[in-house]
Amino acid sequence: MVKKAGVLGATGSVGQRFILLLAEHPDFELHVLGASPRSAGKQYKDAVQWKQTDLLPENAQKIIVSECKAEAFKDCDIVFSGLDADYAGPIEKEFVEAGLVVVSNAKNYRREPGVPLIVPIVNSEHLSVIERKLAVAKAEGKSKPGYIICISNCSTAGLVAPLKPLIDAFGPIDALTATTLQAISGAGFSPGVPGMDVLDNIIPYIGGEEEKLEWESKKILGNLTKDGTDFAPLSNDEMKVSAQCNRVAVIDGHTECISFRFAKHPAPSVAQVKKVLSEYVCEATKLGCHSAPKQTIHVLEQQDRPQPRLDRNRDNGYGVSVGRIREDAVLDFKMVVLSHNTIIGAAGAGVLIAEILKAKDMI
Amino acid sequence: MVKKAGVLGATGSVGQRFILLLAEHPDFELHVLGASPRSAGKQYKDAVQWKQTDLLPENAQKIIVSECKAEAFKDCDIVFSGLDADYAGPIEKEFVEAGLVVVSNAKNYRREPGVPLIVPIVNSEHLSVIERKLAVAKAEGKSKPGYIICISNCSTAGLVAPLKPLIDAFGPIDALTATTLQAISGAGFSPGVPGMDVLDNIIPYIGGEEEKLEWESKKILGNLTKDGTDFAPLSNDEMKVSAQCNRVAVIDGHTECISFRFAKHPAPSVAQVKKVLSEYVCEATKLGCHSAPKQTIHVLEQQDRPQPRLDRNRDNGYGVSVGRIREDAVLDFKMVVLSHNTIIGAAGAGVLIAEILKAKDMI
Amino acid sequence: MVKKAGVLGATGSVGQRFILLLAEHPDFELHVLGASPRSAGKQYKDAVQWKQTDLLPENAQKIIVSECKAEAFKDCDIVFSGLDADYAGPIEKEFVEAGLVVVSNAKNYRREPGVPLIVPIVNSEHLSVIERKLAVAKAEGKSKPGYIICISNCSTAGLVAPLKPLIDAFGPIDALTATTLQAISGAGFSPGVPGMDVLDNIIPYIGGEEEKLEWESKKILGNLTKDGTDFAPLSNDEMKVSAQCNRVAVIDGHTECISFRFAKHPAPSVAQVKKVLSEYVCEATKLGCHSAPKQTIHVLEQQDRPQPRLDRNRDNGYGVSVGRIREDAVLDFKMVVLSHNTIIGAAGAGVLIAEILKAKDMI
Amino acid sequence: MVKKAGVLGATGSVGQRFILLLAEHPDFELHVLGASPRSAGKQYKDAVQWKQTDLLPENAQKIIVSECKAEAFKDCDIVFSGLDADYAGPIEKEFVEAGLVVVSNAKNYRREPGVPLIVPIVNSEHLSVIERKLAVAKAEGKSKPGYIICISNCSTAGLVAPLKPLIDAFGPIDALTATTLQAISGAGFSPGVPGMDVLDNIIPYIGGEEEKLEWESKKILGNLTKDGTDFAPLSNDEMKVSAQCNRVAVIDGHTECISFRFAKHPAPSVAQVKKVLSEYVCEATKLGCHSAPKQTIHVLEQQDRPQPRLDRNRDNGYGVSVGRIREDAVLDFKMVVLSHNTIIGAAGAGVLIAEILKAKDMI
Repeated sequence: MVKKAGVLGATGSVGQRFILLLAEHPDFELHVLGASPRSAGKQYKDAVQWKQTDLLPENAQKIIVSECKAEAFKDCDIVFSGLDADYAGPIEKEFVEAGLVVVSNAKNYRREPGVPLIVPIVNSEHLSVIERKLAVAKAEGKSKPGYIICISNCSTAGLVAPLKPLIDAFGPIDALTATTLQAISGAGFSPGVPGMDVLDNIIPYIGGEEEKLEWESKKILGNLTKDGTDFAPLSNDEMKVSAQCNRVAVIDGHTECISFRFAKHPAPSVAQVKKVLSEYVCEATKLGCHSAPKQTIHVLEQQDRPQPRLDRNRDNGYGVSVGRIREDAVLDFKMVVLSHNTIIGAAGAGVLIAEILKAKDMI
Repeated sequence: MVKKAGVLGATGSVGQRFILLLAEHPDFELHVLGASPRSAGKQYKDAVQWKQTDLLPENAQKIIVSECKAEAFKDCDIVFSGLDADYAGPIEKEFVEAGLVVVSNAKNYRREPGVPLIVPIVNSEHLSVIERKLAVAKAEGKSKPGYIICISNCSTAGLVAPLKPLIDAFGPIDALTATTLQAISGAGFSPGVPGMDVLDNIIPYIGGEEEKLEWESKKILGNLTKDGTDFAPLSNDEMKVSAQCNRVAVIDGHTECISFRFAKHPAPSVAQVKKVLSEYVCEATKLGCHSAPKQTIHVLEQQDRPQPRLDRNRDNGYGVSVGRIREDAVLDFKMVVLSHNTIIGAAGAGVLIAEILKAKDMI
Repeated sequence: MVKKAGVLGATGSVGQRFILLLAEHPDFELHVLGASPRSAGKQYKDAVQWKQTDLLPENAQKIIVSECKAEAFKDCDIVFSGLDADYAGPIEKEFVEAGLVVVSNAKNYRREPGVPLIVPIVNSEHLSVIERKLAVAKAEGKSKPGYIICISNCSTAGLVAPLKPLIDAFGPIDALTATTLQAISGAGFSPGVPGMDVLDNIIPYIGGEEEKLEWESKKILGNLTKDGTDFAPLSNDEMKVSAQCNRVAVIDGHTECISFRFAKHPAPSVAQVKKVLSEYVCEATKLGCHSAPKQTIHVLEQQDRPQPRLDRNRDNGYGVSVGRIREDAVLDFKMVVLSHNTIIGAAGAGVLIAEILKAKDMI
Repeated sequence: MVKKAGVLGATGSVGQRFILLLAEHPDFELHVLGASPRSAGKQYKDAVQWKQTDLLPENAQKIIVSECKAEAFKDCDIVFSGLDADYAGPIEKEFVEAGLVVVSNAKNYRREPGVPLIVPIVNSEHLSVIERKLAVAKAEGKSKPGYIICISNCSTAGLVAPLKPLIDAFGPIDALTATTLQAISGAGFSPGVPGMDVLDNIIPYIGGEEEKLEWESKKILGNLTKDGTDFAPLSNDEMKVSAQCNRVAVIDGHTECISFRFAKHPAPSVAQVKKVLSEYVCEATKLGCHSAPKQTIHVLEQQDRPQPRLDRNRDNGYGVSVGRIREDAVLDFKMVVLSHNTIIGAAGAGVLIAEILKAKDMI
């Protein structure tokens, strides 16, 4: 059955991508679009400054934009939030308290106890914390509670994708460095990254990004508490992470040069690492989710790949590409990871998370 | 006294930059320009496809291009080589055997025993190996022997600049990682890096670059043999180096995100590191060399600097900029280093090396 | 019935795009891939340096590459030529003489009498010259003769698309200027346009391009001779054309700023011009061709459109976008035209021409 | 004698360039820096977000920023205004009424009767309107009146530079078209042109630019009224001008593809046009002004020049480059003109105007 979907922050750049991804989606139908009071009451096509490479879908054009109040979204089976962090806090809280299911791209609740921080091709099993909560409510005869699932930061998504199957196969990684070369699309477009910053230039700093990447990877690659009711992020002793984040002249696709060391030695061989990555099938694919990648991780053998312009669209942006897998003189291995920052790193991840929720009967 | 200068590979991109830097130089005058037999016999202005942002200097325009034979350069006090590695080997050998002094940008002799590999703001004291050789010849009443000095690879130059004073102050660095974001100008212009590779893209591979950066830094930061007649590059045990090299859409200026660990602990503080870098004065500056930077290392405090477009021209490209100096969760420190790849990383380094040779009466 | 397709120059950039477009095409199946003797005998995947944003199609990977000899293509219903002009002349001639149908992207035969020069959304009625020839042969009981159809130059395609319906509606255009801002993809990728030419730069010259644009538009917008057996390009007196062609830092999509004057006055109004463009339906669309655009010409009302990154993919690159339609102080009208240079301006045009040939029973 | 200079809008991008150009200028010394009340009272180095490729000059760093009130500038011999158009109107008016001399980059007074609109290498003779006014005041024993000189729009400056000597030599131009490819630096940097607009893209629209280019060229290339007290811009009948303005991925340097027709026929030959352009010496050069170009117009013969990255810095950005001069099928001639938008098209023009004012004893 097709689920009713709402979008919060529908006129922003993340909101626009949610709308593109949902417009012809077999599992969801656009039901409510929420934006600022300035936009509310207008037809969506008149409220939005559409800046996507695909045309504004016809079935979204005439939807009358609502304010971001839970009342307007009460019929939604799921609500995707593309709100800015400045607004997301109280609005998302109100929605959850009203019993709604929110999948949010905002950073506000990522570190909140009990809130899953999900990269859908990596740690969908973390959703069990919510499943358990739903089961308890059901057992107690209570109405289904609202909840929020957070989408990870864009550069975190690419980083953890190849690490998860490696940890599953070879045990913990105790040291990890990542230098990122990040696309500008994630910063939005008005103004986003100024042209003067990006032409013939690099900006070796993205506010808050290194902290996000360092912290979120520890929650995503971490475990659940023993009772299964919460998350137990890795400690610094368990996994040291150091990130250096750069903005470069690329439209879409984050490239990350990473190095890492396994806790157990001898470390596996390069061939073993490649094998594990190539054979990894994420749960979303096993569940048959519509957007799940056919190949979760593409191991590229050409020495000059992955490249963002050529490889970012593998599996419609839901697949991650890994190349130049080789031994590292300082840690154990180094490699180049490429992921599509607006697909698996933002709106696209939200949609795939929702598909998983549906497959697991959580919405 | 003004020294007579020759340029090998004068029509290539490195050769053109040598000519620009030498055309109005107080220490040198352009005397002989050598290029392929195809160009020999023509006026330089007719032989070259000039692609610099400054006009072809008048005093170079009408020089008749010579072939790259030592005979034609015999009056030169110094010869700058911008030859491709494919040609540099035998030609430079012939020049040295003919008693000429060659400063070469080619990679061919960088690993040769007895050949100094010099970043002029870093290890000019390595020239003592040649000074000693010259002294011996003089003592033995022999004529002054020819010799070659190699300019380092461009990405190596930026990397070692801040490390040298830190090692001098705080002792050996035993682990070092560097992820580079390198400009395209170093690859020349016909064709150099294709536009399709560089627009909306990154190439996560530069042939041979990682090996050069890893090996050359060990020779440059290494010591002399006990008898002072040769070089003793650091071993892998003394300093582990791991590089990941990327080509990005920048015209000039290599950005490097580096991390390193000191052998001795406790490591210095961030403030101590900044102080040592800020106070470093390279020998070329002390010698009063014309092109030597007033400030060898610029320590930038703004969180989004250095940036290639804004900072590559510090001290006419002879100064290196370092920013974002901070502690590193995996090694001790991380920082961003920016250097001008065609100045301190190529032709400009050659000219400053020659100025040092002159200041030391070695030419 | 699915037609057997051959591709000449299959490893080049135009050839690769033919293969992508044909790999899952309902009307054609890849049958023979021709390339240089160096590639012949290898599997296509081993012969090609694949540089497309889509993966090499599975059904092309293992095809054994042939030499470009008619004998190897004799079973092909149609042959697409992506050959360089340096090679296309004699090879395409041999193919036609052997009775094959060639759709060529090379410039060699574009000015040849009797050879149609086709922009498939513009002048498919010019194919009648060939239809007549086929009918004559049939009437005479001769076997079906081979023939060649030329694809126009990329910047010509975008230019003539909006002019054709305007001429049909309002009579001849007697003066036309076009300043182009052309993408780099048309120049191929090894080396194509050097990165040093395209970063922070413009090249105000493309060899031969202005002449092509000026001449080809006169043939495409011209008529047939009275007997219908040949083409009567417009004379300079009938239509003066002046082009200024520039290469800019865009991957795909040619932008053209054009002005033009109608021979008859008073000229139509801006509103009339927009109406005619919006309502234009090309013959390929009427014929129901698979790749034909739903909307041939998109008239954009936003003042800052069309933009190559946002608008080049309208109708999968087969639609042309026109914006900023306004009166011109020197001629009658000015406007901005955007077309996808590798789709409607090259390989894609070839495929749509072939679809038209099939729809007209010419293959 | 060194003149005291003030700068209005000192923290903005135009203001920063005024400061760079004036910091070591032999004719001027930085005396007062004016900015918004938010900046007033701070040292300049603390008030500005410096974004130039040269370091903030030492002699500007510690100047205490003033508010933009005439009182604070009363000792200035000349005031350079880099104010935004939103603020320039009343402030510049107050300054002139207070008897100050203002050279303004803002558009506010460009169309005002009696106000010279000056491209300093083109129409410095238009300053006679002010000279006459000063002479009248002097004759009447009045104190020296304040006045304002407007700098032209950036794309206008490049356009009129080659046209002026051609009109002087061959009579009026009655039709002129210009398609511009404009750099992003003119739009400032916070935010200026968004990176998403400029990477792999073109914006075929710059608000108000076409109107400015069309109107300003008529004033600059026009004459004085008979009595010499005001300006008589060309009418549309005298010179038709049509502009199409585009923003492209270039940091500095506006490229313009222009065509034009002389009123008198036969038109001169291409050789005659080149000769007149090459031999043109602007008045500022004859007056020996410090920043005046040695060569006002560089006629380039290579078919692929001028290019912004390679040619924008001719004569420190005060020289204009013209290439591809050839006959035009629609009008008489076409050519490519390149000028440095922030030098001859903005702050640099202001400084050269001031040098002319000084040379003419007008300040």
